Amino acid sequence: MGSSVLCHYSIKKGAAFLGLGTDSVRVVKADERGKMIPEDLERQISLAEAEGAVPFLVCATSGTTVLGAFDPLEAIADVCQRHGLWMHVDAAWGGSVLLSQTHRNLLDGIQRADSVAWNPHKLLTAGLQCSALLLQDTSNLLKHCHGSQASYLFQQDKFYDVALDTGDKVVQCGRRVDCLKLWLMWKAQGGQGLERRVDQAFALARYLVEEIKKREGFVLVMEPEFVNVCFWFVPPSLRGKQESPDYSERLAKVAPILKERMVKEGSMMIGYQPHGTRGNFFRMVVANPALTRADMDFLLNELERLGQDL
Amino acid sequence: MGSSVLCHYSIKKGAAFLGLGTDSVRVVKADERGKMIPEDLERQISLAEAEGAVPFLVCATSGTTVLGAFDPLEAIADVCQRHGLWMHVDAAWGGSVLLSQTHRNLLDGIQRADSVAWNPHKLLTAGLQCSALLLQDTSNLLKHCHGSQASYLFQQDKFYDVALDTGDKVVQCGRRVDCLKLWLMWKAQGGQGLERRVDQAFALARYLVEEIKKREGFVLVMEPEFVNVCFWFVPPSLRGKQESPDYSERLAKVAPILKERMVKEGSMMIGYQPHGTRGNFFRMVVANPALTRADMDFLLNELERLGQDL
Repeated sequence: MGSSVLCHYSIKKGAAFLGLGTDSVRVVKADERGKMIPEDLERQISLAEAEGAVPFLVCATSGTTVLGAFDPLEAIADVCQRHGLWMHVDAAWGGSVLLSQTHRNLLDGIQRADSVAWNPHKLLTAGLQCSALLLQDTSNLLKHCHGSQASYLFQQDKFYDVALDTGDKVVQCGRRVDCLKLWLMWKAQGGQGLERRVDQAFALARYLVEEIKKREGFVLVMEPEFVNVCFWFVPPSLRGKQESPDYSERLAKVAPILKERMVKEGSMMIGYQPHGTRGNFFRMVVANPALTRADMDFLLNELERLGQDL
Repeated sequence: MGSSVLCHYSIKKGAAFLGLGTDSVRVVKADERGKMIPEDLERQISLAEAEGAVPFLVCATSGTTVLGAFDPLEAIADVCQRHGLWMHVDAAWGGSVLLSQTHRNLLDGIQRADSVAWNPHKLLTAGLQCSALLLQDTSNLLKHCHGSQASYLFQQDKFYDVALDTGDKVVQCGRRVDCLKLWLMWKAQGGQGLERRVDQAFALARYLVEEIKKREGFVLVMEPEFVNVCFWFVPPSLRGKQESPDYSERLAKVAPILKERMVKEGSMMIGYQPHGTRGNFFRMVVANPALTRADMDFLLNELERLGQDL
């Protein structure tokens, strides 16, 4: 298995659960924007083979958790094809972008994946949880993998086509009909309605980015390509002190303090995290379709207010 | 791993998922009421050890899916103690019986288990899904097993005790706060309210059993000890034909036909299944607290009506 250094932690966790062991996950390098480097993927495959391992799966990410980066799927698909590897795309976060004619190019190449994971409960805001696993396979693979043929639950002598029964194809036994939420939402909003939701999220993220650039005391981590807007709030006492040796260390302590203050105030909830060599920065994910420009302004004003004495 | 022949199919499925392989699950014999035979468990452990295997877990069941059987936990705990094995109790279905002073003796010995699985979404009718894993361990075992320390999600520099954060202890990442349903229900109903629910289910199951005994054309599979009432409906054309060589075969075809008719009619939904050498029989699970004796009467009348021409 190979996946980028910035892939979701569920990849290693899954390897542990399946008994493969986390050492079986090879970490592929990502560029400065968080995208997997296909040349390094190729290198890792050769290295693994040289060690006698048998690579079988590559996990690309469409929309990483922190930076919202999209791996170059076409190039990764080429590598998978050359080496006969299963190509999985973790599009849990970014998969919904496919609904937008304007932005779907971020996922170019996803049609070559063997499997795709997608969470409509993220960007489309379907109720938790609503996860889809999309497969090229048409041989009833999930049934082959998960079927337990428990005759006391999955009766075969029914009056309709039992191939329609999904109970024996899934991991769980008792579970909710999660797909119903997606179906109802899609029927209610239409493809165009969902597209508007995605496009609006991109537009609002862009607005936030431009406002951040206008304000003293806010520094973008990088220009986002998705709706994850990553930035530092630099409080008054640290402004212009970039050359100070303890600048990064002191800046990293700002986000936790502001988070505490906003939680106690009850005004906002914005995540923060360190990332690689970068100290704690805020990650505002602009996804909720009810958000407006006024909310973005409030967010920045509130951070300024909460951090004015720092 | 060892579990009874009547344990839930999730045991084998779990072994497959974890990479242990289904062959690592030893099937222990059950008696005619569906209860694990502790002597056979001991025998299976010795056999496994003789083959060089290292047994590590015994899974007992409190409330099997079909018959509602409770394994003899004290005797099983003795075996586990003698051999130093982890004792897990799958009390998904029967665990709620602990809330009843009258019936909790069915689970005598469960206090000796290392782990217990319990689904309040079953007998207590909490909304799907609401599953609890109870552990004797106080060393933060789930964190040791599942923790991934994804620094971008599970920040440690918070203003409160991060030991309270459960995110890194569970299998999933994004998930609902399932325990809230249980907490709210418990607060609303109280321990006594939930006890009444359990006791009422037992009482109503008892009523159904007695009514079944009074009617021609209904045959109990066995006297239930729980709220699973298993029975055959014997249609007019098969009554008194028990000695006929094709009796069992013809009787097994009755339940699927009646199920089809009740589904198309929209009047009821009762499960049926074959079980061991027994052909298809109905399993009425009396759990819904809104059920009344009138519903039990309707159930039997409706089966008679739907099956009168068979």
